[in-house]
Amino acid sequence: MKKTARAHTNIALIKYWGKKNAELRLPLMSSLSMTLDAFYSETSLETGQQNEFYLNNQKQSDQSAQRVFQYLHKLQDSFGLPYDALKVSSINHVPTAAGLASSSSAFAALAASFCAYYDLDVDRKMLSRLARIGSGSASRSIYGGFAIWQKGHDDKSSYAYPLDEKPAMDLHLLAVELDQKPKKLSSTKGMQAAQNSPFFQPWLARNDAELNDMIAAIKNNDFTKLGSLAELNANEMHAINLTAQPEFTYFEPNTIKAIKLVEELRQQGIECYYTIDAGPNVKILTPLKNIKEIKKLFLSEFSNVKIINASFGPGVSILD
Amino acid sequence: MKKTARAHTNIALIKYWGKKNAELRLPLMSSLSMTLDAFYSETSLETGQQNEFYLNNQKQSDQSAQRVFQYLHKLQDSFGLPYDALKVSSINHVPTAAGLASSSSAFAALAASFCAYYDLDVDRKMLSRLARIGSGSASRSIYGGFAIWQKGHDDKSSYAYPLDEKPAMDLHLLAVELDQKPKKLSSTKGMQAAQNSPFFQPWLARNDAELNDMIAAIKNNDFTKLGSLAELNANEMHAINLTAQPEFTYFEPNTIKAIKLVEELRQQGIECYYTIDAGPNVKILTPLKNIKEIKKLFLSEFSNVKIINASFGPGVSILD
Repeated sequence: MKKTARAHTNIALIKYWGKKNAELRLPLMSSLSMTLDAFYSETSLETGQQNEFYLNNQKQSDQSAQRVFQYLHKLQDSFGLPYDALKVSSINHVPTAAGLASSSSAFAALAASFCAYYDLDVDRKMLSRLARIGSGSASRSIYGGFAIWQKGHDDKSSYAYPLDEKPAMDLHLLAVELDQKPKKLSSTKGMQAAQNSPFFQPWLARNDAELNDMIAAIKNNDFTKLGSLAELNANEMHAINLTAQPEFTYFEPNTIKAIKLVEELRQQGIECYYTIDAGPNVKILTPLKNIKEIKKLFLSEFSNVKIINASFGPGVSILD
Repeated sequence: MKKTARAHTNIALIKYWGKKNAELRLPLMSSLSMTLDAFYSETSLETGQQNEFYLNNQKQSDQSAQRVFQYLHKLQDSFGLPYDALKVSSINHVPTAAGLASSSSAFAALAASFCAYYDLDVDRKMLSRLARIGSGSASRSIYGGFAIWQKGHDDKSSYAYPLDEKPAMDLHLLAVELDQKPKKLSSTKGMQAAQNSPFFQPWLARNDAELNDMIAAIKNNDFTKLGSLAELNANEMHAINLTAQPEFTYFEPNTIKAIKLVEELRQQGIECYYTIDAGPNVKILTPLKNIKEIKKLFLSEFSNVKIINASFGPGVSILD
């Protein structure tokens, strides 16, 4: 018995940055994302002699293996299944160079392969809830195009749903890797530390309005609105971190340089916007026609930069 | 007839970053500052054949001269004085290397020399109001030690007063010049642009509490509290800028590097805090004993850095 699922990573345009319940990964805010074609995880589940986790063909015996099996035990528990020994093999097609977290695609693929392996009758809403328990952002990777993770108030009501799985918008994302060093502060710790910023509550209070504005931008196929809202929302998240007590920042010197290059491009009439997650790298939102100019500038300004181009990716799928 | 006044620059620990009335320079928030011994302006007023402004012995005929005489005409108007021709000579002992604005000391010295020249009977509260009309932060440079500029609600009620002119606190400021380029966005334009940040109103709402906390830290001689409050307040100002629409930042890559060095020093038990104004340079607050270690690290990490050490300076004085 072996089942394989593929799920794509997503990038949040309205960020998830705060947990209401760490165990269930219930968020303090709703978020909205774009699923990306260029980056995905393929995960197989098969009957094993013992629990084994292979990542990119390397057997893992560290925290990541522990996290995978703790997660699978939770799923087994919730369906009244025994703790069968399982061999999990995952290939992450998310190059380090992307500067993107692979946990969204990894846990979405793992949840889907689990359901396929046990032949469970779950709809995508349920699958999103199961993925969420593994990694919050994974709840959104169930769907292609644009997805919304509604915060909900408990395990049952906190899941993602598709907003537009085949968007018409001319929207590309350039994943710009400025820095390959692993981040010093994990997302989990960062979002915990951020909550004592004096701007955290004001930000939360804006969540509904920001989400609605973003939905309207998508429905109106308005790239300018989408880009500027995404940039503002990302800056809000980083403003929260900078004003936490004690303050912290995921920005590195090159992050500031990249931000100023995006501003410069806009001043030149080359429309693009940045979004930044829990790390120093920037992702640039742009229509197709500007990709060449943007790449040219970044390649000339940074000696070691890697840039990967992505657009809309599909939702989760079962491969065999 | 010639009168000369000296005034020292000040650094805001609770920032002034928003005008309610641009003409009268009425602020949206109260601010609190430390007057610095290392940096000052000396300004002479004497009877002239025509209006002339000399800055550091160079005759000025640009905007700065215009600003000086527009200001002096306002003062002449308010005292019912004729527009006498005046020769203004100012020496700024504020090296570019300090990364500090000289307008606080310049307009405090100019206001004081004006009152001395006309032998006007003004108290320091009135002098602070007059200085404010030239440059908001100048209102605080009338006093030594710690001063508070209460925002007030009109020309009469918006002035600074001394909080503690001879502070006992072991407090030094290292002015760290990372970048000598003139800032691209003036303070006046920056504070205008900042006001549409979604966090601007929440920040304003905190002004009284932040001011009171800072006053308590000073009264309790609590450097840790003073430093962390000053750092938070500065970060709030820069968080406001980052979340303005459109966003902007005074940070340069080296600003982020400097911030992380301060964090690193603290982790090593070398207590110090940063504050940052409308430019890329950082100012580090520290007790005397840590100056050597801080300087050593910054000099080793930056190739072109200049560091000037300051502590409490006196209020405005008439020299002849």
